[in-house]
Amino acid sequence: MRGFALFASLSKRRLITVSLKRYCSVSSKYAANSYEKVLKGIGISNSVREAQYAVRGEVPTRALQIEEELKQGNKRPFDHIIFCNVGNPQQLANPPISYVRQVLALCDYPELLSSSQFPSDAKEHAKRILASAGKGGSGAYSNSGGVSCIRQDVVDFIQRRDNHESSVNHVFLTNGASDGISLIMKLLIASSNTGVMVPVPEYPLYSALLSLLGATPVRYYLNEDNNWSIELSELERSYETFEKAGIAISGIVLISPGNPTGQILERSNLEQIIDFAYRKRLVILADEVYQENVYTKQKKFVSVKKVLREMPSKYQDVELASFHSASKGFYGECGRRGGYLEVTNFSDEALEQLYKLASINLCANLNGQIAMSCITRHPRQGMPSYPRFEEERSNLLSSYARRAEMIQTAMNTLEGCSCNQVEGAMYAFPKISIPQKAQQVAKEQGKHPDVLYALSLLEHTGICVVPGSGFGQKPGTFHFRTTILPPEEDFPKVMTAFQKHHEWFLNKYQG
Amino acid sequence: MRGFALFASLSKRRLITVSLKRYCSVSSKYAANSYEKVLKGIGISNSVREAQYAVRGEVPTRALQIEEELKQGNKRPFDHIIFCNVGNPQQLANPPISYVRQVLALCDYPELLSSSQFPSDAKEHAKRILASAGKGGSGAYSNSGGVSCIRQDVVDFIQRRDNHESSVNHVFLTNGASDGISLIMKLLIASSNTGVMVPVPEYPLYSALLSLLGATPVRYYLNEDNNWSIELSELERSYETFEKAGIAISGIVLISPGNPTGQILERSNLEQIIDFAYRKRLVILADEVYQENVYTKQKKFVSVKKVLREMPSKYQDVELASFHSASKGFYGECGRRGGYLEVTNFSDEALEQLYKLASINLCANLNGQIAMSCITRHPRQGMPSYPRFEEERSNLLSSYARRAEMIQTAMNTLEGCSCNQVEGAMYAFPKISIPQKAQQVAKEQGKHPDVLYALSLLEHTGICVVPGSGFGQKPGTFHFRTTILPPEEDFPKVMTAFQKHHEWFLNKYQG
Repeated sequence: MRGFALFASLSKRRLITVSLKRYCSVSSKYAANSYEKVLKGIGISNSVREAQYAVRGEVPTRALQIEEELKQGNKRPFDHIIFCNVGNPQQLANPPISYVRQVLALCDYPELLSSSQFPSDAKEHAKRILASAGKGGSGAYSNSGGVSCIRQDVVDFIQRRDNHESSVNHVFLTNGASDGISLIMKLLIASSNTGVMVPVPEYPLYSALLSLLGATPVRYYLNEDNNWSIELSELERSYETFEKAGIAISGIVLISPGNPTGQILERSNLEQIIDFAYRKRLVILADEVYQENVYTKQKKFVSVKKVLREMPSKYQDVELASFHSASKGFYGECGRRGGYLEVTNFSDEALEQLYKLASINLCANLNGQIAMSCITRHPRQGMPSYPRFEEERSNLLSSYARRAEMIQTAMNTLEGCSCNQVEGAMYAFPKISIPQKAQQVAKEQGKHPDVLYALSLLEHTGICVVPGSGFGQKPGTFHFRTTILPPEEDFPKVMTAFQKHHEWFLNKYQG
Repeated sequence: MRGFALFASLSKRRLITVSLKRYCSVSSKYAANSYEKVLKGIGISNSVREAQYAVRGEVPTRALQIEEELKQGNKRPFDHIIFCNVGNPQQLANPPISYVRQVLALCDYPELLSSSQFPSDAKEHAKRILASAGKGGSGAYSNSGGVSCIRQDVVDFIQRRDNHESSVNHVFLTNGASDGISLIMKLLIASSNTGVMVPVPEYPLYSALLSLLGATPVRYYLNEDNNWSIELSELERSYETFEKAGIAISGIVLISPGNPTGQILERSNLEQIIDFAYRKRLVILADEVYQENVYTKQKKFVSVKKVLREMPSKYQDVELASFHSASKGFYGECGRRGGYLEVTNFSDEALEQLYKLASINLCANLNGQIAMSCITRHPRQGMPSYPRFEEERSNLLSSYARRAEMIQTAMNTLEGCSCNQVEGAMYAFPKISIPQKAQQVAKEQGKHPDVLYALSLLEHTGICVVPGSGFGQKPGTFHFRTTILPPEEDFPKVMTAFQKHHEWFLNKYQG
C-alpha cells in the first residue's frame, strides 16, 4: 500500500515535471525546472577523490567523534583521546620556546617594544624584522619570496649548518613545508605521464599531491631490515618498472630523518641517491623538516645539499629542492604554518617560474615567516635570552629522546611486534603481526587489517594512531605510526594501555 | 687570437668528455657523464609556464629593481616607488586596527594576559580562542577546517549580515581567500575539458588557477558602459560559444565589490546570475573580499548567499561558495593570510572531499584564523575597545571614500581617459586611449600598449600600476588598475605626477 502510494506520488510529480518543462520551454529557451548538484559523483574532480591523506583519515575522524561523545558525558574506559596521529607537539602540552612567542607578539603589536616585559634581544630581533618588512610590518604582504631579512636569516642558517654557500634568491619562505613541496611538484609535473619517486612508507602528502596533479607516484620500498635504508637496487628496480610502463620519471623524494620511519640516512646512502639522480636525470626533493630531531648519538643529521656540494664536480648541476619547517624540531610551531624552500642548481628559467608560482598566492603568512626567522636566528650564548632558550631547548630534546627510547622498547616487548630504533623525527613505525582471523574480519568489513587494529586500539584505549596502510608498506606486512609526543609522565600509563589492548586483540582473534 | 684559444680549450674539454664517456660506460650500466637540468624548457610544467599573474608581473618587477637602484644612490625625478599595484593597505601606511593586533599578540604570547597594557575585552577574546584551540594555542595545528570557536564567529557574522542560517560545518578557515578559491577550483575541475566562467576584467588569480589545473577560463565581459555590470546576454553568448567548442562548464565566478573594477553588483543583477547558474547547472564562486569597502551611499553590499536564500524555493539547491578575507576591508591584514570559505548547498560527498583536501595542508595558519575571529567578532558598542576601534574604522573608511572620489575625478580630467565610479573595493580601472604611434612602438617591443604606458609612468614618476591587459579587457581598449591606497596627503602630488606624465606621453606619441 505504502509502496503504491509512493509510486502514485512519484507519477504525479513526474506529471507536474512534464507540464512545468513544457511551460518553461515556452517562457525561456534555457529554463529548467530543477537544479541537479554539480559537485557529486563524477562531478567532483577524480584526482581529488583519489587523493588519500590518512593522517587525518578514518581513524582520526572516529577519534574526533569519540572526543565529542566524551564531552557529552558518554562513558568509556578512558576520559580523553590521546592524539598520536599528527606530529602536533604543542597540542600534547610540549611547551613552545618563549623567545619565538616573544618576537611574534612584538611584531604583531609593536606598542610592546616599549614594554619591560620583553628581553632586549627579542626586541632587537623584532625591530630588525619590522624595518625589513616595511611600513606594514607583519600586516602587509611581503615580497613573494618572503621578507628580505628573513630570507637572509635562512641563508645564514644554511651556511652555518653546511659550510657551503646559499643565496637569498634561492630561498623562498612558505606556508609550512607542505606549501613549498607543492610549489616544486607543480613545477615538476610537466605532463600526465610524469612520475616522481617516493619512498614506501612515505609521508602521504607526496602521493596526495601527485594524485592532485594527475601524476604517478613511482614507489620504492625502504629496507625495514636495515633500519629503513634506501637500497640502490630497489631504486633501480622501481625506476625500471615504471620506465617500462611509459612513465617519464623526473624527481625523487627522500625524507631524512624519516617520516613515518624515524631513520637518519647515512652520508654514503645520500651519495648513492645523488649519483642515482645524476644518472637518471632527476630533481631531488629533500624533506628535512626533522633535521633538529636527532636522538641517537651514533648519527648526525647531514643535509643533502652539503653532501651534494662535497661530491665531485660532475654532480654540481644536480637539481635539488630542500624543505624545512617551523612545525617540527624542538619548536613545534605547527600552527604558524611557517617553512622554507631552498633550491640548488635551478636554472634561471625555473627560478623565474617558481617566483611567479609563489606570487599567485601573494606571499607566505608573515607570522610563519617570523617564526622561521626565530628558528634560524635563535639566541646565542651571551645574549640575554640564551639561558631560558637553552633550558627550554635541552629539556624538550632530552625528553623526546627518552620518549623515543621508551616507545621502541615497549613496542619490542609486544608479542609479534618489532620496531626499529627511532633515531630521529617524531614517530615510531612498528611492525605488527595480525592474526589470520582478524585479517578475515577486516576483509569482510572492507577495511585494511591495520585499520581494524587501529580502530580497536582507539575504541578501547583512546589512543589514536595511523594505520600503516596510510603510509604504504610491503604487501602482507602491517604497521602503525605513533608519535612520541604524549607527555612523558603519561608514558607508563599509555604503554600499559597499549600492551593490554594488544594482548586482548591477539586473544580475541587467535586460534 | 682570443677566439682561437677559446676554441682550442673547448675542443680539449670535448676530448676529455668523450674519454670519460667511454670510461663510464664500462664502469656502470647507467653511468652518464653530464647532468642535463630537468627544470628548463618543456621540462617545466606547461600549465605553470602558461599561468599569468600580472599583479606581480613585468611592471611591478621593474619597480622593485628601480627601488633597489634608488637605495644604491641612483638619481631619479622621484625618491621612492609608490606601489599602487597590490591592494596592500598597511604597506602604504594605512594603519592596522589596534584591537586585531592586541588579540594576536595575546594569543601568541599568553604571558601578556596578566599585563595591564591590554583592554579587558581583547584579553577575553584571546582567552576564548586559546580555550577553543586547546593546549597548544596558536602554536598547534587546528582542526582542518579551523579552530571551532572561530568557525562559530564566522557563522555568527554571516547570520547577522544575511539574516539566514549558516553552519560551522559549512565554514572553512583558509590562508587568505586565494587558498579557499584554490580548494573549490580543485574540487570543481573534473576533467581537462572543464571550464569555469570568469569575468573580464578579472582578478587574475582565477585564470592562473584554471591554467594550473589545466582547465579553460570561459570569459565573459563586464559592461563598462553600465558601470561594469554583468549582462545576461553576454553570459549566454560566452556560455554558448564555449559549450559549442566542447567545454563542460561547471562554475561561474563573480566578484563584488569588483576587482579591478570597483563596482557593486545590484541585487537584481545577482538574481539574474543565480537564475543563470540554476539553468546552466553551475556552481557559483562569489568573491566578496571587499564587502566592507563600500564608498557610495547609493548602494549597499548584498551577499550572493542572502540573495539566493531570498529567491523562490526552486533555487534552493544551487551550489555556492563564498569567500572572505582578513586582507581587505578596513582591516587590511594582508600579511596574516587569513580568510574563510562558506559553502552553501554542497552535497555531503562534496563536503567530505573538501574536508580531505583541506586536511592535506593540515590547517590554515592560526594567526590568520585569529585575525578572522577579530574581524567577525569585533568590539561592539559598550565594550572597552569600542571607542578606539570605531575611531580607527571610521577614519580609514571615510578616507578611502575620499581617495576613491579623488582618483576617479582626477582620471576623468585626463585627456582621452574615462573612469567609472569607484563604488567599492580598493581600485580604479580607468580606460585610456593610447596613440597609434605608441601602439606601434609597443608592438615593436613585443609589449601590450598598456604595458608600455605603465612602464613609462613608472620610469618617470615612480608610480607603479598594473596594465589592463593583466586583467583582460575588450580588444582595442586599454586600461590600468591603480589602488586607491597611497596616503591621502600624498594625493595631490601623486595626481599631479600622473597628469604630467600623461600629457608628456600623449605629446611624445601624438601627431
